Amino acid sequence: MRKISMLGTGLIGTFYTMTLLGMRNKDQIMIVSASGEESAKSFSAKWNIPRWTTSNEEAINDPETDLVVIGLPNHLHKEAVLMAVAAKKPVLCTKPLGLNAEEALEMLHAVEKAGIFAGYLEDLVYTPKTIKALASVKAGSLGKILWTRSRESHPGPHSDWFWNKELSGGGAIVDMGCHCIEIGRSFIGKDIRPLEVVCWADTQVHPIDAEDNAVGLVRYENGAIGQFEVSWTFRGGMDLRDEVSGTEGTIWLNHWLRTGYEMFTSVGQDGYVSEKAESDTGWLFPVGDEVHALGYAHMFEDMLNSLDNQTEPSETFYDGYIVNAIMDACYRSVESKKWEQVELDDWRGGEKDESIVEYTEYDENHYFIKEEKMPDGKKKMILKDKKTGQITQIFID
Amino acid sequence: MRKISMLGTGLIGTFYTMTLLGMRNKDQIMIVSASGEESAKSFSAKWNIPRWTTSNEEAINDPETDLVVIGLPNHLHKEAVLMAVAAKKPVLCTKPLGLNAEEALEMLHAVEKAGIFAGYLEDLVYTPKTIKALASVKAGSLGKILWTRSRESHPGPHSDWFWNKELSGGGAIVDMGCHCIEIGRSFIGKDIRPLEVVCWADTQVHPIDAEDNAVGLVRYENGAIGQFEVSWTFRGGMDLRDEVSGTEGTIWLNHWLRTGYEMFTSVGQDGYVSEKAESDTGWLFPVGDEVHALGYAHMFEDMLNSLDNQTEPSETFYDGYIVNAIMDACYRSVESKKWEQVELDDWRGGEKDESIVEYTEYDENHYFIKEEKMPDGKKKMILKDKKTGQITQIFID
Amino acid sequence: MRKISMLGTGLIGTFYTMTLLGMRNKDQIMIVSASGEESAKSFSAKWNIPRWTTSNEEAINDPETDLVVIGLPNHLHKEAVLMAVAAKKPVLCTKPLGLNAEEALEMLHAVEKAGIFAGYLEDLVYTPKTIKALASVKAGSLGKILWTRSRESHPGPHSDWFWNKELSGGGAIVDMGCHCIEIGRSFIGKDIRPLEVVCWADTQVHPIDAEDNAVGLVRYENGAIGQFEVSWTFRGGMDLRDEVSGTEGTIWLNHWLRTGYEMFTSVGQDGYVSEKAESDTGWLFPVGDEVHALGYAHMFEDMLNSLDNQTEPSETFYDGYIVNAIMDACYRSVESKKWEQVELDDWRGGEKDESIVEYTEYDENHYFIKEEKMPDGKKKMILKDKKTGQITQIFID
Amino acid sequence: MRKISMLGTGLIGTFYTMTLLGMRNKDQIMIVSASGEESAKSFSAKWNIPRWTTSNEEAINDPETDLVVIGLPNHLHKEAVLMAVAAKKPVLCTKPLGLNAEEALEMLHAVEKAGIFAGYLEDLVYTPKTIKALASVKAGSLGKILWTRSRESHPGPHSDWFWNKELSGGGAIVDMGCHCIEIGRSFIGKDIRPLEVVCWADTQVHPIDAEDNAVGLVRYENGAIGQFEVSWTFRGGMDLRDEVSGTEGTIWLNHWLRTGYEMFTSVGQDGYVSEKAESDTGWLFPVGDEVHALGYAHMFEDMLNSLDNQTEPSETFYDGYIVNAIMDACYRSVESKKWEQVELDDWRGGEKDESIVEYTEYDENHYFIKEEKMPDGKKKMILKDKKTGQITQIFID
Repeated sequence: MRKISMLGTGLIGTFYTMTLLGMRNKDQIMIVSASGEESAKSFSAKWNIPRWTTSNEEAINDPETDLVVIGLPNHLHKEAVLMAVAAKKPVLCTKPLGLNAEEALEMLHAVEKAGIFAGYLEDLVYTPKTIKALASVKAGSLGKILWTRSRESHPGPHSDWFWNKELSGGGAIVDMGCHCIEIGRSFIGKDIRPLEVVCWADTQVHPIDAEDNAVGLVRYENGAIGQFEVSWTFRGGMDLRDEVSGTEGTIWLNHWLRTGYEMFTSVGQDGYVSEKAESDTGWLFPVGDEVHALGYAHMFEDMLNSLDNQTEPSETFYDGYIVNAIMDACYRSVESKKWEQVELDDWRGGEKDESIVEYTEYDENHYFIKEEKMPDGKKKMILKDKKTGQITQIFID
Repeated sequence: MRKISMLGTGLIGTFYTMTLLGMRNKDQIMIVSASGEESAKSFSAKWNIPRWTTSNEEAINDPETDLVVIGLPNHLHKEAVLMAVAAKKPVLCTKPLGLNAEEALEMLHAVEKAGIFAGYLEDLVYTPKTIKALASVKAGSLGKILWTRSRESHPGPHSDWFWNKELSGGGAIVDMGCHCIEIGRSFIGKDIRPLEVVCWADTQVHPIDAEDNAVGLVRYENGAIGQFEVSWTFRGGMDLRDEVSGTEGTIWLNHWLRTGYEMFTSVGQDGYVSEKAESDTGWLFPVGDEVHALGYAHMFEDMLNSLDNQTEPSETFYDGYIVNAIMDACYRSVESKKWEQVELDDWRGGEKDESIVEYTEYDENHYFIKEEKMPDGKKKMILKDKKTGQITQIFID
Repeated sequence: MRKISMLGTGLIGTFYTMTLLGMRNKDQIMIVSASGEESAKSFSAKWNIPRWTTSNEEAINDPETDLVVIGLPNHLHKEAVLMAVAAKKPVLCTKPLGLNAEEALEMLHAVEKAGIFAGYLEDLVYTPKTIKALASVKAGSLGKILWTRSRESHPGPHSDWFWNKELSGGGAIVDMGCHCIEIGRSFIGKDIRPLEVVCWADTQVHPIDAEDNAVGLVRYENGAIGQFEVSWTFRGGMDLRDEVSGTEGTIWLNHWLRTGYEMFTSVGQDGYVSEKAESDTGWLFPVGDEVHALGYAHMFEDMLNSLDNQTEPSETFYDGYIVNAIMDACYRSVESKKWEQVELDDWRGGEKDESIVEYTEYDENHYFIKEEKMPDGKKKMILKDKKTGQITQIFID
Repeated sequence: MRKISMLGTGLIGTFYTMTLLGMRNKDQIMIVSASGEESAKSFSAKWNIPRWTTSNEEAINDPETDLVVIGLPNHLHKEAVLMAVAAKKPVLCTKPLGLNAEEALEMLHAVEKAGIFAGYLEDLVYTPKTIKALASVKAGSLGKILWTRSRESHPGPHSDWFWNKELSGGGAIVDMGCHCIEIGRSFIGKDIRPLEVVCWADTQVHPIDAEDNAVGLVRYENGAIGQFEVSWTFRGGMDLRDEVSGTEGTIWLNHWLRTGYEMFTSVGQDGYVSEKAESDTGWLFPVGDEVHALGYAHMFEDMLNSLDNQTEPSETFYDGYIVNAIMDACYRSVESKKWEQVELDDWRGGEKDESIVEYTEYDENHYFIKEEKMPDGKKKMILKDKKTGQITQIFID
């Protein structure tokens, strides 16, 4: 059982709190901090949290707590982590870890040097669907992974600070690309080095400095590609989808807008439909248990069990650092309009990865390219002569 | 925190145990019983349960436990409940409550007389989607409920006793109709009396006495219809779907085969795909978190919190009794080939429910039937003259 | 190339005309009739039809035409067919054929006696999906057909006469049940005799005499069930779905609301979205080519090619008669509240159909009931002892 | 009515022929050419085509025909077009128009100089869903178009020549990217100049020189992005999807794998399931009418009606040229690893397009960024101060 200092009372703090206090869970939040007194007070009242404060430092140093959970705006992560280190308390930090790789590396080294348990709260790697899909992929059901595509798009974030580049460190890439990048990396393999990045980003609609739309490709050393698509201008709710393509199979995950819950209503229901829904009449697509579908339940289960058992959680500050480094390369690519190297001063994965390409032999003299069933029922085989390189087709009844 | 006697180690006992011990839950199973020694032993080892027994009585009377959870074959429910009553322990019983309404009523009256907390483990009313949909419907988003359709179909149950009418009390109706009936009743309103039933059932494929397919219609006093469709011969996995039609809206829930997780694999993955999946290559439709998607997590949360707080859970033995009474009428209808009354010796709902039919006025002289947008952009209104009964249409630009 | 007399200018006449004159088709409509002069005139102008009239007789007897297409209200079908017979012209009649089986039989015998080509315009059996699914089923891909379910539901018909029982012959059953019944019959086999019917119907919402909701089960001689569900009170558009369950497979067809076209719009588009859509903002589900998706294109192709080649089309007046006879039994069942025989004075199918039930042997002493892959990877087989009838399970690694 | 010379008897020739001769169409194919005598002979026999030849020139110059349809491998397009020009016959050419922009421009100028009707057979712009979606977008239902994504992926092409870079001009980009690029361009606006391109392409799996996977972004002058994704290594069938994101809405089209036809079969059906399906048991997703769903029917309707009426078809050689130019830039970008300009020697669209960005005023002093309904029912508005640039949020009950 854990006694927690919760920093932040925004949407992310609310989801964390709902999860930690939900179901038959045994953990408790003892103190909560918010920048505004009113927010801190009403949040503590709503969730039966004994104490509140407007000082993150006070919350972190609360004598009764043994775990710090950071749900603050991006520009406050580093300071809060360093205070948790000073207090020698385990710390869990929301995504992205830092405003950039430099900050993230400083946080990583700080917790490591102090020997403090630290978890990176990347919830979308923990959705029930993603967990099962990752297990499938690890079991080989898709063969070698060639290409992943992860999308997060919605009509824009909830809080004002998100829209301010100084406070957030960027726009849609920093807000959501961090999720997509880590999802792709998880499927492709955390041991495979992300080599280079090409990225388009633009402010297509909103009167802001940060990008409201971006698409990026992360190329890994083995040739696999992790594609991400993020948008703050999507219309229709929140689109959370992942796709994984391997040599032997395909996985498509839809976490939000099409999960088997469809509803038409001409009158609406009072209030909230689901996160970032855009209307409350007509065809709606609610999500049964949002906290669960977004991965919060399994994420905190992993974090707290790992803390209890002194093991490493699936998502660590090191993962957060890699993601920041990839995002830094993305921003450079947007400026330079070309592929940019991912700069990793601290790489702990495999040294040199083999290419995923592997030819299949058809017979002694030919490589196999493809077979297909034709409308007339015959099987067509496409082959390549190993010596001449010539490509031919043969038909088999 | 609860200390539990778990009766049964089959699929249902496994799902219950996974749920009770899953996530960060604070409850414990102290003893488990199974009919076979081997099953009891290996189950206790697998789930770290301190004690095992082949005697349900011993498990129930374990001195350390304060809650009995029944996951036994249908013909053993009554005996186990009566033993829990004798032991004065709270009891949760799986579905269906009894082999028939007579048994269910005896169980209901026994727990009530003894003042014992009793919950009916009807998990499918507790799926996250169903919980949210029920809240929506109660908030009026669908207007008056006219028609519900609930389907559970798969290629047949897991355990041999299910296929034996004496032990199960029946076939697909008893196995799965109980779910569908209670789902329909929950949406239509538990206070509305189920009046009569028409049901078709047949043994279309399997060499058994019990029905392997059935369709039934339950007519409620206000005119609403609760339709159920069950099959032990469905091919393609497990089809779990609910539909709710109201005067103002529609809800479609898909709990299993189409939940936003789609996968193609040419090689398969080692072992289990999802409950009742039929293959492990080709297009597959896994479910992220099965225990959660099937309602077990929210069901036990409600049961245990209700027990802690001395409140009534959403699903009680009374609900189990009503469901048994409706199923009894279904079996009579299959025999008589006509509508049969639902016999309720103990009805605790509303006395006389008004019809759901309510006419809408268009103007002083006309009822409104319908309006529609035509391909040419005009609006057509169909009206009925209140006096003459004549139906006419008018067009509005 | 055909020269056509088109009777009727309502929605059905419009769809027929769009189809006959669409794409690169070679057929022509020479004259159109409508009850109102204004309708006839504007329709002929819109579709470049040389002549118009308010007299069906005049249209039928137009000297230049060699084919009569009837798109009139139900109570006018018989008269129009008999006039076509008198004119010795081939005739195609919309669904349902007659107001009841008696009328349908009279029409059937009239065209047969006169030796006139006659087609029953049951479009929904001709949707591209249905045609392909029927071919699949005939090729054995689903094994023996056990159960079909066909649904047509929407917020109610377009024209005033539909809502008037005298003119339409009934409500939702006559309007849409005729489609569903023939779809089920096509999958189960037209040669299999429909034996009996149980049907619920009610007027749940509208101020009309005819039923606005109904569910029916048609039992065929081999034990197969053709289920239909029709509603004039559905909210959310038009729900057109068919399901076929066989011993070896399953088919699910969705013809309208979920066909791979999804759209969110906050502004709407001017005018028409798709047949019976209920709104023009929010999430919408248009259909690409409505005429094609509803089967009109393939239906007229079959009708006109059959007429050219002097062969029998897939849907004849005999099929229309069977459907009318089944619907008559449905209405009797609604009244009697029990199963009712389908009365067929003129049955041309198989004499005595074998049951679909067929036991599978596991070994000399056992029938096979079921096998299933368990979470632990083992295979469970459920078997029945041929002599004792006892049901047992064995596990295979 | 047209009399046609058909060049090519591969899959594309088959689809064209099925379409031209299908339904009640009035057009005729008089002669067909193939590289092999056997193919030509059997094709002509199968489709009742009076004459066959192995000489494209002979087919083109057949004295009876008045239209040439080119369904040949890519490297033969230019020669065939120039022969049709010499023969002064209208010509329809399959996609891509040329091996590169230079070839395409030569073909374009040749037909224009000769005053010959020429159509570009880009079928996927003509699918029924795309046609309706384009009409919606033109009617303003999505506001300004920001981002389109078009995907075509499958396990690789049917014919050997496709896999040979010299004959095809490239790999997956040339084969399928041409479709995706023109789809994106159609939604964004053909008058908007495509400025620059960034593209990743790789040969990840197959033993070939051409790319088997690629992703590209085409940036248009107004800031809109047309994204394409193509793969010859996709597992699970053929994935044909388009997405359109606008300031006011979203469109998602699925043309192949999820169109409302779902089927499970344990036995398979004899032979063909649908184009590029990978198995014939398990869950399958057939397409009702493939020729229609792929746009062939509406494409030839537009082409032949335009030819009859002497109007311009939707897809001309000019469109083919633009697509070739964009693909050329893609290949340059793959090499240079940076954004590359689209070089257009012959640009006929708008001169200088305005940016799609347009700020919305909230009040005199603020721009509007976003509003959202919060879980507690309040409305949050995010605003930007016009002068200070500061971003703030206000809550409205």
